[in-house]
Amino acid sequence: MENGFHKKPRWDTRASEASLRTINPIRGIVDGMKLEPNPDKDIIALSIGDPTKFGNLDPSEDVVDAVNVSLKSGKSNGYSPSVGFVDARAAVAKKYSHPDAPLTSEDVILTCGCSGALDLAIGVLADAGQNILVPRPGFALYATLAGSYDIEYRFYELMPCKSWEVDLENLESQIDEKTACIIVNNPSNPCGSVFSKEHIQDIIKIASKHHLPIVSDEVYADMVFSGSTFYSVASLASNVPVLTCGGLAKRYLAPGWRLGWILIHDPVGAFEEEVRLGLFRLSTKILGPCTLIQSALPAILEKTSNSFHENTMDILKTNAEICFKFLDATPGLKPIMPKGSMYIMCGIEIDKFHGFMDDMEFVQCLMSEESVFCLPGKCFEYPNYFRVVLCVPEEKTSEACKRIKEFCTRHYRGGLINTVEET
Amino acid sequence: MENGFHKKPRWDTRASEASLRTINPIRGIVDGMKLEPNPDKDIIALSIGDPTKFGNLDPSEDVVDAVNVSLKSGKSNGYSPSVGFVDARAAVAKKYSHPDAPLTSEDVILTCGCSGALDLAIGVLADAGQNILVPRPGFALYATLAGSYDIEYRFYELMPCKSWEVDLENLESQIDEKTACIIVNNPSNPCGSVFSKEHIQDIIKIASKHHLPIVSDEVYADMVFSGSTFYSVASLASNVPVLTCGGLAKRYLAPGWRLGWILIHDPVGAFEEEVRLGLFRLSTKILGPCTLIQSALPAILEKTSNSFHENTMDILKTNAEICFKFLDATPGLKPIMPKGSMYIMCGIEIDKFHGFMDDMEFVQCLMSEESVFCLPGKCFEYPNYFRVVLCVPEEKTSEACKRIKEFCTRHYRGGLINTVEET
Repeated sequence: MENGFHKKPRWDTRASEASLRTINPIRGIVDGMKLEPNPDKDIIALSIGDPTKFGNLDPSEDVVDAVNVSLKSGKSNGYSPSVGFVDARAAVAKKYSHPDAPLTSEDVILTCGCSGALDLAIGVLADAGQNILVPRPGFALYATLAGSYDIEYRFYELMPCKSWEVDLENLESQIDEKTACIIVNNPSNPCGSVFSKEHIQDIIKIASKHHLPIVSDEVYADMVFSGSTFYSVASLASNVPVLTCGGLAKRYLAPGWRLGWILIHDPVGAFEEEVRLGLFRLSTKILGPCTLIQSALPAILEKTSNSFHENTMDILKTNAEICFKFLDATPGLKPIMPKGSMYIMCGIEIDKFHGFMDDMEFVQCLMSEESVFCLPGKCFEYPNYFRVVLCVPEEKTSEACKRIKEFCTRHYRGGLINTVEET
Repeated sequence: MENGFHKKPRWDTRASEASLRTINPIRGIVDGMKLEPNPDKDIIALSIGDPTKFGNLDPSEDVVDAVNVSLKSGKSNGYSPSVGFVDARAAVAKKYSHPDAPLTSEDVILTCGCSGALDLAIGVLADAGQNILVPRPGFALYATLAGSYDIEYRFYELMPCKSWEVDLENLESQIDEKTACIIVNNPSNPCGSVFSKEHIQDIIKIASKHHLPIVSDEVYADMVFSGSTFYSVASLASNVPVLTCGGLAKRYLAPGWRLGWILIHDPVGAFEEEVRLGLFRLSTKILGPCTLIQSALPAILEKTSNSFHENTMDILKTNAEICFKFLDATPGLKPIMPKGSMYIMCGIEIDKFHGFMDDMEFVQCLMSEESVFCLPGKCFEYPNYFRVVLCVPEEKTSEACKRIKEFCTRHYRGGLINTVEET
């Protein structure tokens, strides 16, 4: 290096491989798309999984008041323990305790959003070179986190024809000696599916047989439409350890507040020796979520009324029904009616359309002609589908669906005959 | 695995090596100590680097009002971009821009606390197997983060006899082909030192010579006692790229709010190709700090008065002077007068005391006899010192110092003659 004295200084600062591996596939896909709306039509974005984006879904007044009390008290400005204030952890434990999966404050770690919870859960269970099993279609962050840690992610298939249930045989076939855990997402983003008790038990059986812990992404816990029931994986896992990831983001309509949690369910004592310690240690990197929200958490979880949650779900269900009805009556589309969360997935019979060859082109063309934007299935590793978010105000949802229907009708050319004619 | 059918299921879920490597040395040291206070004396904890802990230092009313406005607006509940809202980033850029190190919003990434900023800065510059240079004595989190990523941390020495300036020769001798960056902490925790312009320039020269970027931990930026001047490393680094880490924690007296930032200073274009991208990618793991605080950030940075900051520093300086005066007049102690931050380091001439062999025993014995608790130097890799925090109310600071003086006087046995007598 001394020899560089007479040379022009050379800076070739590299970024770490770990940072460059931390890829959010959605961003790469969307950035690469040609998204030019029709200047004559206002844009309707059905793409953003943020329930607060449209102004029709706000946190309850009780929740805002609770944060205000926390702010005004002047007692929530200091550091919390890295796993969170014990009162806040106890409140989460009380709220999510189940007779068959009891929780104490010791079983709760507060994190910076559910993303932070998934980061810790994946980070504690898998090392570089191991693999984790993730659903396809599924939430892109699992891949982002796995990539960051150089963990392989392997897809197991969900079945659209069976309301997005897991293909159990396929799931089991992905397991090998390097598998560290199974990630389950229920209710699902992007599918809107809600698993039955029996189906969850079937997944647990596979985990049990192979002694694999489950990371259950339940950020949409309890967000099911009337007529469906939500079962947490932990409540049914009598012989499998589960790290449940959740948070305020969706059900309490405050994703920006970044308050998430991990619930530790360990009926077989698998996490005693190392995993609890590992989780604690990982928590010391960041020192917990914002204390103003932590302090408000007991009031937030206790005071938010059922009617508040019911109102949210009614809005989402109404939009789901509007979407399903329109899209189901649209030539070439195959929507799958959701049972919860905030999304509906819709299949595209791509070979029955003129003008686009896959979901990417479909979505871009829809934007340029109708100024309606949905995420293509490719964002969830599931081509020839698109995802519609259900938190957009009803009139906009209807308008968007109407435009999608017109768009599809215009481009529809029916079955394979046309394809043959063209070639 | 199929063979396990008739066996008792065996769960041996391991935690990842990465999680188990994420060790905060302070915690291990403190947990291993025998800390039993004297039941006849109330405890005075001079150990906690949280300025809000004692109720005498609160955020300014303007700051609280700004967060209240953000909460009441109902417009800050949704996701921010993963690097933070552009208005908040612009406000940070405006506040910390310097004629010789100009910033735009593009040069600012908001993070979950300054810890989060350090996590990103270290994570983007170094990969497993590389090394980073960290000060000794120094803040324990650098080691925690490096351990987590399997990055080696190498100490460079600070010199107590020169107001904790860097031993430049020692710093340069630590550099090898695997060195990824130099971490500088100014003003310093635990030393309370504030580097002169010339000294910072000397450090920059070494970084420049070896083409090493600097990570400058400036969470105590501008927190200097009257008579001293703070220079940011970036403002003096005309030919070295710097990632400056900062946040609201200390100067704005709100560490629990977890609002930190990275300022990207890149006069030589070293970060253009990869590091900016890597930082962006790492930010997508967690999706930014709490939006309520982000939205309040422009008002927080603009409205907090100089007199508020001056008042804080006056309190800290008064405590520093009390501590220095008492400890300097105490047999066997060698305090080093700080110029800023919130700490004073005090050397122990350990061989001049009866009853304890090192700083650990000194601190434990001080607790058991006087109910005063300070962190031992070992927590900062610096034996036979202890650190005193300066944010404790003045009367408690005086009382604690009085007790330390009595304690030392009681145990003092002077020079080596006594040692010889005993053996």
